[in-house]
Amino acid sequence: MKIAIASDHAAFALKAELSAWLAAQGHVVTDLGPDSEASVDYPDYGYKLAAHVAEGKAERGVALCGTGLGISMAVNRNPAVRCAVVSEQLSAYFSRDHNDANVIAMGARMIGIEQAKACLTTFLATPFGGDRHVRRVEKLSNPPFARETA
Amino acid sequence: MKIAIASDHAAFALKAELSAWLAAQGHVVTDLGPDSEASVDYPDYGYKLAAHVAEGKAERGVALCGTGLGISMAVNRNPAVRCAVVSEQLSAYFSRDHNDANVIAMGARMIGIEQAKACLTTFLATPFGGDRHVRRVEKLSNPPFARETA
Repeated sequence: MKIAIASDHAAFALKAELSAWLAAQGHVVTDLGPDSEASVDYPDYGYKLAAHVAEGKAERGVALCGTGLGISMAVNRNPAVRCAVVSEQLSAYFSRDHNDANVIAMGARMIGIEQAKACLTTFLATPFGGDRHVRRVEKLSNPPFARETA
Repeated sequence: MKIAIASDHAAFALKAELSAWLAAQGHVVTDLGPDSEASVDYPDYGYKLAAHVAEGKAERGVALCGTGLGISMAVNRNPAVRCAVVSEQLSAYFSRDHNDANVIAMGARMIGIEQAKACLTTFLATPFGGDRHVRRVEKLSNPPFARETA
């Protein structure tokens, strides 16, 4: 699978570890940065990742920051992307089954590496449930706010 | 504090319980629905809540669905709002200190009532940390995507 990954400085080490782990499984991983632990602003990397996924350059995205919260807010500004902040596998499962999430967000200061890998495995393996969820996901692609700012 | 609350059908009972609990503490609570457990679409209620907070009708918002994930995606479509999905207090703390979150999202099927109350207490009591976080929060208010859809 084509997977893009981005973080802030707080999650730089987690990004490196997950990138290598995904690549070792045969995924094609695009690292959108940052490329060091120097302080950066998480919205910049969240927007970059969201655009990458929205343009179809990656099928899934991985967004990492200290808590996963800040970068998830940035990613979810893009109506073409659905980003789920998770810290355990059941939420990762539901994010795919119910919300067709195409980006997973996790917090480098909140969960450990094995939990992160387990969440990511579930996120990548779980199909969208379809059915009644389709209409709701379509509504997420058409927010009233985007039109209001036009 | 003026607090708005909204949910989907899965979190209808949690919404009722948290609304009463907040009101008993002296908060002015506006319940934006739904008003029964009949099936609804979480984006409709997320958008309604986000607009309410963005328009200054409430200082904070509480967004509830089965996992907290779906409704948080909807709320975060609005660039004026910062919605944090949390399942424990430390994330609730950081969502305020780092991200100046004005909406908290929680999952009725994921956490129990006392954990939800504890997260909400922390969310309401924690001030924004300011400093380096100000620039990042400002970037969350000015996503490139909103302009692209103009």
